[in-house]
Amino acid sequence: MAKKKNAAKTKPVILITNDDGITAPGIHNLVEAVKDLGKIVVVAPDKPQSGMGHAITIGQPLRLSAVSTFFDGVEAYQCSGTPVDCVKLAVDKILHRKPDLCLSGINHGANHSINVIYSGTMSAAVEAAIESIPSIGFSLLDYSIDADFTAARQYARLIVEQMLKKTPEKHTVLNVNFPPVAPELIKGVRICRQAYAKYEEDFVERNDPNGRKYYWLTGEFVNFDKGKDTDVWALKNNYVSVVPVQFDLTNYQLKDKLEKTWKL
Amino acid sequence: MAKKKNAAKTKPVILITNDDGITAPGIHNLVEAVKDLGKIVVVAPDKPQSGMGHAITIGQPLRLSAVSTFFDGVEAYQCSGTPVDCVKLAVDKILHRKPDLCLSGINHGANHSINVIYSGTMSAAVEAAIESIPSIGFSLLDYSIDADFTAARQYARLIVEQMLKKTPEKHTVLNVNFPPVAPELIKGVRICRQAYAKYEEDFVERNDPNGRKYYWLTGEFVNFDKGKDTDVWALKNNYVSVVPVQFDLTNYQLKDKLEKTWKL
Repeated sequence: MAKKKNAAKTKPVILITNDDGITAPGIHNLVEAVKDLGKIVVVAPDKPQSGMGHAITIGQPLRLSAVSTFFDGVEAYQCSGTPVDCVKLAVDKILHRKPDLCLSGINHGANHSINVIYSGTMSAAVEAAIESIPSIGFSLLDYSIDADFTAARQYARLIVEQMLKKTPEKHTVLNVNFPPVAPELIKGVRICRQAYAKYEEDFVERNDPNGRKYYWLTGEFVNFDKGKDTDVWALKNNYVSVVPVQFDLTNYQLKDKLEKTWKL
Repeated sequence: MAKKKNAAKTKPVILITNDDGITAPGIHNLVEAVKDLGKIVVVAPDKPQSGMGHAITIGQPLRLSAVSTFFDGVEAYQCSGTPVDCVKLAVDKILHRKPDLCLSGINHGANHSINVIYSGTMSAAVEAAIESIPSIGFSLLDYSIDADFTAARQYARLIVEQMLKKTPEKHTVLNVNFPPVAPELIKGVRICRQAYAKYEEDFVERNDPNGRKYYWLTGEFVNFDKGKDTDVWALKNNYVSVVPVQFDLTNYQLKDKLEKTWKL
């Protein structure tokens, strides 16, 4: 499908996806922010896929269709699957190669702290890194469809330029969040660790028109982490947060402890 | 809902879930293996949810219904959501407290190496640990519905006993996989790290009866990791593998490097 290979020989190939779906303003802002930095190919879900985490579609087939009219002059496809499916399909059936970089977002809403684990945006980025493609997930702390992406665009571009310049290690994944403020209020970029902060869940319980109960997830965000080196602290203080992410989930400290204490 | 609280005052409360759905033999084997070790409450998906990763349901309501007839004398519920939804709903709407332990599985199929990140079984266990509930995900390296759970039951029980005895730290998560062999062939239990092994994806491309293309995910498992301290090695050599898992995804090594080299 990617026919323009020769024309873009020297430019890096950049795959762009998201979890809010291909019509979301966030992905359009990301494409606009970086489109002259490489040969861009968009492969994004055909509907919102927020909160899908690292889900993949195994029990049913996937659809894929070209929608290049969505983006001015940029090759683009929509996919019926999850954000992770989009990355897998893009590599295997559209690009027929690994892109040089994968970008995901810009998400409408925060993906700092524990959100990284629920986020379709970040899971797409992590999937790319598993497949040896350096990647960045971008999120703006504003859930609104009308969110102002001015500062996010500016800093996303800076970060992508930095990433392309440094020839990152192939498993690199960055989780980048932008505070919801104007560019002149942003104090800079901070490399952070993931805060231990989470949602305290509370399901709303209601009756449907037939009298049957249903439950709707809600929750209040609580930060248990007082560190000043966290993403939550940085964002609260108007810094762009950058958390390098890993997909080796082994808890090495606990591994050592269990080796010494377990008798089995 | 959990009415028998007083009767089980001294016994630990054990929440059991899975991703293969409440009718899967794996979860029934797990309940049977541990049901005298605590007050058991089952909350599991009403349909298969394999590969759902850490997905949560945010755009639609959830249903929950009692199905205690499924398990001999054990309080049980099915939920229309993902494995992670099951854990959240169980804590908030069924138990009205944090259980002492959460068990997930026994999964029909491997969750070693990178599978931990796609697995609904393991995501349910990780969700519990995020909520300060020690947890264990169990998986048998046999996808068959008729898999023989004899050895898995025996070792799952040993590991749960060990866990209950040691009063684990509240964020403890263990990823336990069983080799698909008879109990007498199992050499023991090994504490391991997650192998760097993954699926090399290949989508099957077909035409539907209307001539439109569809894609179906397939893939070949490839182990890039030659270490003898990995879960893949242990399982290949007929050990039960135990990988302690973490949910702080920060890559601290890369964090240090970026702090020194990035100019932003």
